[in-house]
Amino acid sequence: MEMELERQREESLEIVLDLLKEKKYVPARQELLTNNSVDIAEMLEEIRDELGLDVAIIMLRSLPKDVVADVFAELSSDSQVEIIGGITDKEISYIIAEMDFDDMIDVLEELPANLVDKILDRAPKEERKLINTFLHYPENSAGSIMTPEYISLKKDMTVSEALARIRAHGKDSETIYTCYVKDESRRLIGLVSLRSMVVAESSTKIEDLMIPSDDLICVNVLDDQETVSSLFTRYGFLALPVVDKEERLVGIITVDDILDIIEEETTEDIQKMAGVAASTDEYLDTSVWQHMKNRLPWLIFLMISSMITGAIIVRFEGLLSQVISLVSYLPLLMGTGGNSGSQAATLVIRSLSIGELDLRDAGAVFWKEIRVGFCAGLILSILNCAKILLIDGEPLLVAITVCGSLLLVIMLAKSIGAMLPLLAKRLNVDPALMASPMIASLNDLITVVVYFLLATSILGL
Amino acid sequence: MEMELERQREESLEIVLDLLKEKKYVPARQELLTNNSVDIAEMLEEIRDELGLDVAIIMLRSLPKDVVADVFAELSSDSQVEIIGGITDKEISYIIAEMDFDDMIDVLEELPANLVDKILDRAPKEERKLINTFLHYPENSAGSIMTPEYISLKKDMTVSEALARIRAHGKDSETIYTCYVKDESRRLIGLVSLRSMVVAESSTKIEDLMIPSDDLICVNVLDDQETVSSLFTRYGFLALPVVDKEERLVGIITVDDILDIIEEETTEDIQKMAGVAASTDEYLDTSVWQHMKNRLPWLIFLMISSMITGAIIVRFEGLLSQVISLVSYLPLLMGTGGNSGSQAATLVIRSLSIGELDLRDAGAVFWKEIRVGFCAGLILSILNCAKILLIDGEPLLVAITVCGSLLLVIMLAKSIGAMLPLLAKRLNVDPALMASPMIASLNDLITVVVYFLLATSILGL
Repeated sequence: MEMELERQREESLEIVLDLLKEKKYVPARQELLTNNSVDIAEMLEEIRDELGLDVAIIMLRSLPKDVVADVFAELSSDSQVEIIGGITDKEISYIIAEMDFDDMIDVLEELPANLVDKILDRAPKEERKLINTFLHYPENSAGSIMTPEYISLKKDMTVSEALARIRAHGKDSETIYTCYVKDESRRLIGLVSLRSMVVAESSTKIEDLMIPSDDLICVNVLDDQETVSSLFTRYGFLALPVVDKEERLVGIITVDDILDIIEEETTEDIQKMAGVAASTDEYLDTSVWQHMKNRLPWLIFLMISSMITGAIIVRFEGLLSQVISLVSYLPLLMGTGGNSGSQAATLVIRSLSIGELDLRDAGAVFWKEIRVGFCAGLILSILNCAKILLIDGEPLLVAITVCGSLLLVIMLAKSIGAMLPLLAKRLNVDPALMASPMIASLNDLITVVVYFLLATSILGL
Repeated sequence: MEMELERQREESLEIVLDLLKEKKYVPARQELLTNNSVDIAEMLEEIRDELGLDVAIIMLRSLPKDVVADVFAELSSDSQVEIIGGITDKEISYIIAEMDFDDMIDVLEELPANLVDKILDRAPKEERKLINTFLHYPENSAGSIMTPEYISLKKDMTVSEALARIRAHGKDSETIYTCYVKDESRRLIGLVSLRSMVVAESSTKIEDLMIPSDDLICVNVLDDQETVSSLFTRYGFLALPVVDKEERLVGIITVDDILDIIEEETTEDIQKMAGVAASTDEYLDTSVWQHMKNRLPWLIFLMISSMITGAIIVRFEGLLSQVISLVSYLPLLMGTGGNSGSQAATLVIRSLSIGELDLRDAGAVFWKEIRVGFCAGLILSILNCAKILLIDGEPLLVAITVCGSLLLVIMLAKSIGAMLPLLAKRLNVDPALMASPMIASLNDLITVVVYFLLATSILGL
């Protein structure tokens, strides 16, 4: 099904591109309009890449008024900035004014300050103040992703009065399915769903339908967006109210915006776990230079840690030159240990991030990993021991050295791998940083020390 | 804020546990009911762990009728099965009958067949047939997560007739915010939002408000849930209609259920990327044995691949025994190469999974990684070269060998790391399997070959 949708999108894009190449703008516009705004936005970006920014802007301008703002909101922020550079200030103001408030804030955040000032100058005074407040919420806070466009009701309204209000203000509201009840000082006192209003008698008081604020979950403007998204996932909300520290309702966050944020946060977590600086830019849109800057810090960290491992090896050069075959087992020990550790670390990081584990579970996690490490280590050691004796034909003492090290290294890697993310959480550092790269380099260090010490004592060198 | 909510939950749990220890069931029930059903479910599991299943069941039974089913739906499936073992068949049937249809199917899927038969025997004939159909949709398909409880309208209804219908059937419906318009043969011909109905005149025909099915995105019952969740994220839907191959509407999927599925799918992806078999069981609920079974296959694969690497090292023992210091640079080459590769692989895997990249981008990805690899490799090589000459005091030829290998290894690792996930996608294998463990082991192999060949030719050994 998705394949089919994708195919349809691609066919439609091909048609549009072909028409545009022949400068048939009107039929191209018709074809473009058979798609929804998310897809049109993507197509405009393709048009820009294939035929240049000018053609993309012509097409954007040709769209009906109500579609332009929707499509513009779906463009990547780089494309937005680029297009804004190519259209008149009047057009910019027009598009911005038509956009949903939260989308508009997202755009303004990306624009150069002088352009923002120009746009603000044209906005009505009241709105200008509001925009300014919203622009000042910290990045990734609840305040930065909320919208002030919600339906607010009074508790002594009847259902029919409330529905009349919804009819009047519904168009500009992000959602009408959850409405918010405020007192005179703008404090949130409850919420009422459209569902309960539609089902109720028209003379029922809102007060009698509303869920009072004591039973509500709301977030603070300064809460992190990750906190917000985990509340949505936990409770399955359609919208969450956002309050300031005086408990005044300042905005709402809706589930459709949260889906994007979950995707973003997950991408950032996965990047961090692979030792890449978190970035929400698309892979191909990121320059070689930026890619390198995102990846180099961890590579340098790893380089330094492996220099230390190398220095330890140098100290055991005497041992190695006597039993050179020991070297051939280093990849086995380092590889298996590193992966054992990152398996444990990854499971713990993910469990922490979705709230399945917390710091109080540290003891239970440690005990579990010790046992998992022991069992896995034992099986791998026995297999290896057989291979070293029977296939490699090495002496028993070498087999004991390698397999003893393997068991120890796996147990250490598993338990350290599991504990480091918990330690990070305890120190308010992001646990995702304690994944494969960190664990693998730490493990290499541990491996050479354990291996060579064991070799020295067992082989008596 | 989340911290505060968590603290509140924990305090409430402490109070309940303390009351239960003194057998004060009525006040414990009161306290429990100050929480919402998601939290009550979690607390019941804590009560079971601390005070035994009996006490948890007493508390579940004590809850008001409408709460019991909601709470039961939020329990983990293990807990559901356990509790069902401890209550009467009559109670089971009662709870099941009160649950939302999609939650009920989830429970039935986990129960032993004889129990399912017993429950089905008590259901009305019409419902029994429906349940049976739903139980037969493949796991992780759209059919397995949809619900048949939606509002269906006819195109010639007026808005006031439609609202009357919503009032009558709204209680049993998963959502009333999107309603579906079907023709006589149950084919989906359009959808209409409650929002548009509330804002419209009461005499308006549904036909004039509805979005016709040509402009709709819907999924097929057999589509994978990952396809469904990516559509929700892409388009920000509240609900998606599910049709069978005759285009008849068979159910809907709502966004609140999708949030859980996104979390599940992400967890599985992350697990696969760390070389752990995908599992949705909670970390601490998974036995040591199961943890080991999930992790052993990749560890054994890695072991075998590192044996091959070891065997290559053995072939170069002559070289190594002459220049033993070469060994001390192995961790550097293997570590940096492995991480370089898994950085690239992870970025590509994630971009594929959120649809930012597809197979046609392979060339662009390759060219980008070659350049990123060259730049990163050059910087690391220069740093290393200085260190080898100045700090280690090794001869220039050794420095050239190590740094030349480093540059080559990083470039190879980056490009192979980026290409393997694309190749996997091409072969319809999950790209997530081509992450760190696979890349690191492949890289170890490449490293020793490149390093020792270069050493042999440069050092003339």
